[in-house]
Amino acid sequence: MSQTWQNLLEHKHKLASTSIYSLFEQEPNRWRKFTVSAAGLFLDYSKNLIDSSGMRLLSQLAEEADLKTAIKAMFSGEAINNTEWRPVLHTALRDLNRKQDLIVGKENITRLVQNSLKKMEQSVNAVRLGKWRGATGKTISNIVNIGIGGSHLGPNMVVEALKPYASPEIKSYFVSNIDSSDLCETLKKCDPETTLFIISSKTFTTQETLCNANSARTWLREKLPKIAEKDIIRQHFIAVTARPERAEEFGIDTRNIFPFWDWVGGRFSLWSAIGISIAFAIGMDNFRALLFGAYCMDQHFLTAPFSENMPVILALVGIWHINFCHMHSLAVLPYDQYLSLFPAYLQQLDMESNGKSVTKDGKPLDYATAPVVWGSVGTNGQHAFHQLLMQGTEPLPVDFILPLQSQNPLGEHHNLLAANCFAQAQALMQGRSQKEIIPELKEQGFTEDEIKNLLPHKIIAGNHPSNMILMDKLTPERLGSLIALYEHKIFVQGVIWRINSFDQWGVELGKKLTNKIAPALLGKKTNLDALDQSTRELIKIYNQKKPT
Amino acid sequence: MSQTWQNLLEHKHKLASTSIYSLFEQEPNRWRKFTVSAAGLFLDYSKNLIDSSGMRLLSQLAEEADLKTAIKAMFSGEAINNTEWRPVLHTALRDLNRKQDLIVGKENITRLVQNSLKKMEQSVNAVRLGKWRGATGKTISNIVNIGIGGSHLGPNMVVEALKPYASPEIKSYFVSNIDSSDLCETLKKCDPETTLFIISSKTFTTQETLCNANSARTWLREKLPKIAEKDIIRQHFIAVTARPERAEEFGIDTRNIFPFWDWVGGRFSLWSAIGISIAFAIGMDNFRALLFGAYCMDQHFLTAPFSENMPVILALVGIWHINFCHMHSLAVLPYDQYLSLFPAYLQQLDMESNGKSVTKDGKPLDYATAPVVWGSVGTNGQHAFHQLLMQGTEPLPVDFILPLQSQNPLGEHHNLLAANCFAQAQALMQGRSQKEIIPELKEQGFTEDEIKNLLPHKIIAGNHPSNMILMDKLTPERLGSLIALYEHKIFVQGVIWRINSFDQWGVELGKKLTNKIAPALLGKKTNLDALDQSTRELIKIYNQKKPT
Repeated sequence: MSQTWQNLLEHKHKLASTSIYSLFEQEPNRWRKFTVSAAGLFLDYSKNLIDSSGMRLLSQLAEEADLKTAIKAMFSGEAINNTEWRPVLHTALRDLNRKQDLIVGKENITRLVQNSLKKMEQSVNAVRLGKWRGATGKTISNIVNIGIGGSHLGPNMVVEALKPYASPEIKSYFVSNIDSSDLCETLKKCDPETTLFIISSKTFTTQETLCNANSARTWLREKLPKIAEKDIIRQHFIAVTARPERAEEFGIDTRNIFPFWDWVGGRFSLWSAIGISIAFAIGMDNFRALLFGAYCMDQHFLTAPFSENMPVILALVGIWHINFCHMHSLAVLPYDQYLSLFPAYLQQLDMESNGKSVTKDGKPLDYATAPVVWGSVGTNGQHAFHQLLMQGTEPLPVDFILPLQSQNPLGEHHNLLAANCFAQAQALMQGRSQKEIIPELKEQGFTEDEIKNLLPHKIIAGNHPSNMILMDKLTPERLGSLIALYEHKIFVQGVIWRINSFDQWGVELGKKLTNKIAPALLGKKTNLDALDQSTRELIKIYNQKKPT
Repeated sequence: MSQTWQNLLEHKHKLASTSIYSLFEQEPNRWRKFTVSAAGLFLDYSKNLIDSSGMRLLSQLAEEADLKTAIKAMFSGEAINNTEWRPVLHTALRDLNRKQDLIVGKENITRLVQNSLKKMEQSVNAVRLGKWRGATGKTISNIVNIGIGGSHLGPNMVVEALKPYASPEIKSYFVSNIDSSDLCETLKKCDPETTLFIISSKTFTTQETLCNANSARTWLREKLPKIAEKDIIRQHFIAVTARPERAEEFGIDTRNIFPFWDWVGGRFSLWSAIGISIAFAIGMDNFRALLFGAYCMDQHFLTAPFSENMPVILALVGIWHINFCHMHSLAVLPYDQYLSLFPAYLQQLDMESNGKSVTKDGKPLDYATAPVVWGSVGTNGQHAFHQLLMQGTEPLPVDFILPLQSQNPLGEHHNLLAANCFAQAQALMQGRSQKEIIPELKEQGFTEDEIKNLLPHKIIAGNHPSNMILMDKLTPERLGSLIALYEHKIFVQGVIWRINSFDQWGVELGKKLTNKIAPALLGKKTNLDALDQSTRELIKIYNQKKPT
């Protein structure tokens, strides 16, 4: 344990007897000190139980982890994903006006990115202008993205978030689950003659994606019996993959295969051709604006000193909550209906990146890493789980996200939305004491005895931390900044925790075991003796298709 | 701390050095002992780090909390919600063939429930048979439920889950958020002439619901300018509320106002007329089958000994994880696309019920209560957050839910879905040791040095607990059983924790503060001096509509 870590533990101990509320009194300038602007976003982190000297200590943690060097290493294409020997260059995907080439190995990344965007632009414009026709000559009006994980959550979240920018002529769908109900319910809404499928898979072997892609192909064949299969696939399928030869084997035309590279992680891939479903929906100009918003956050992240660096600050506050306050989950509460998928998106980004328990060098950790990320849009959550946020047995940190302007101004809706958002953050911090409750209960006519009984149930401890992230409006550019903010936050935490945020070896085992179990469920003779009793019996039950 | 609690702590200590895997060896009959069937559901809880003597100790906790009496008190209508002086009788809503009347105070609950169902049936059939006409004479094809919290999450989850049973002629929508984007995006899909709004609010004062109801009324007025407002409201609005006089004030016809009662909590209300949106979608027969499934679980819960009582067992295993293994979240992973909203539904049910920190008598607790409930459908989660489940720094409990038969049989999709589900549970339990990894890496051609470096990243500790819940098929009846299972699980935990699971005083403060902040955002002159610095400055920023 480093001296700084030790100092932070002591600092936590010192702050344990104080309240967030009183920190405002101790530091009259607190609000100005604990707010920061960057790339069109504004962060107020003043409502956390941390003071200026605590932030300085946390900042030291970052210095000691050599964060500055780590940031440069990522942006410059060093192989920071050290268990897969790869660079991590999602930032290069949005660095569109770069003057110098970025060369990694033998590849000119800058050129690859620009070419991919150009290729995307051709197809996107062809579809949106009605020049791309289905096999029977009709224009395309349904886009079905088949992909899972990073090939699903990012694009789906963005398409939902930017619905006000979408063309009404193009409907976007996302199929990810291997559960056939996902595909079947989607196909019910699609006309085969006007539907274009995007098959997104880095390896083009992802079980779910290939299974759904095959079933989609069969569906088209059955629905368009007079059309040659070759023509069906050419006009109704595109692929995004790092293994184009496999997409070609599936029958997809080379011109319809878009690149994906080793140096882009799945959960960071919405900026690449994996985001083509976004571009089909909102057009290339808006897609470029999304990239530009992320680029602005990248530049801020690269250049701002830690004390004014929004992703760094957000990361440090998170480290404070996780490692020193022992809070193991993070509630993300966007007060914007269009951001309904943002918590699910962040779940992958954070939990898959930092859900690790060994250092980059393989040493076991003795401190916690990624929290459970969860949440939902406000005000909905207020009527669901805020009871626990207010009166549960453990305080949990919260990130509020609020655009100041509505995409759909209507009466007082938006003012009330904002009032609710601010009030929840305030309530978490200040709580409600018996001093405030007793007079109110008296006024409501309760007797002394009733008040005595009711009082403890109405007290709210308060002193619960939260961040508030504001933007003027949820535009493509602002959304780009917001996503990049969290990407970099998570990166910073990974650096401080000394982990590799870019691999995901933990998901391998499930795939292996699936392959062992599957034959037994597919009616193939299998020796189940090596399996544990529970799995063996569950397989038997499954094969009877009756649970008892 | 009771002796049993103490014994359980010691028992945990004893089990700390063992593994779930080895418990199967110690108890050859383990699988048979640690599985239970009820009401068409099957629970395998053998993959938890708990043995038979541990389960007996946990069962003692339940005995000592006088669970048997508490269950009877709930079903018989005692005022177990002791801070609101109310009975808790959602179970009466599904006890349809009850011979004896259930009398609470002066009310005959049995009669009320039957009458409400009859009234529902009339309206539901009128709409579904095309007899109910909009103000311009057209049949109804869009149902928009306006409600939030319990008036949203339950009905929306069920309508989504039972889509295969829904009439294709009726489209169901749910509007809950005060964010105008929620309503506006929904109305874009609706034809005013064929749209029926359900306004669901116990008090008929819920800010979100009334704000949306008013905007919906304005929309209809603007879209149907030639129709008298009276006729618009009569033909296009129904209400579900405990305050019918307020719904009448809104203009809703008495015949279109459905009852809601004090003895049904919002988060337990989908079985009442709050579920009318479900009935519009799937018809009364299916709605009754849903109720019947819950009734079957009720009967099981009432009569089975604790050692064979599925809700009790699920509760005890949860208590074990929360209070003795100190796991503070619960991942709910339904392997069924139709259950996509089930985790969000359970969030409210669990976290609002048991997110409490004082006993029923108002004494502060020194143990944890409700966990953070989160999750998503499988297999999607595998490509998102399972990395953390497998290799995060803290083990988390998981509930898997799997219907054995698909609603949409298609190729091998369902077999693979099940294989994935079983494999994940197996992987969490058995993990992956260096003994298994090294030969594999050798085979893949890695050098000794590379293997040494890679190995620690590939190891999965295992020994992570999970439950597996199976059913034959996701029918209305089975879904009813599943929901009631969790309702009762949460009730049992509340009884053991000595808390009131049926109030939600923690959400009051946010409403109060919203009312204080709102005028300042609505442009009214307000004195902000009493507010904390952060809230005050955020209000200023909001009023400028620019974050910086």
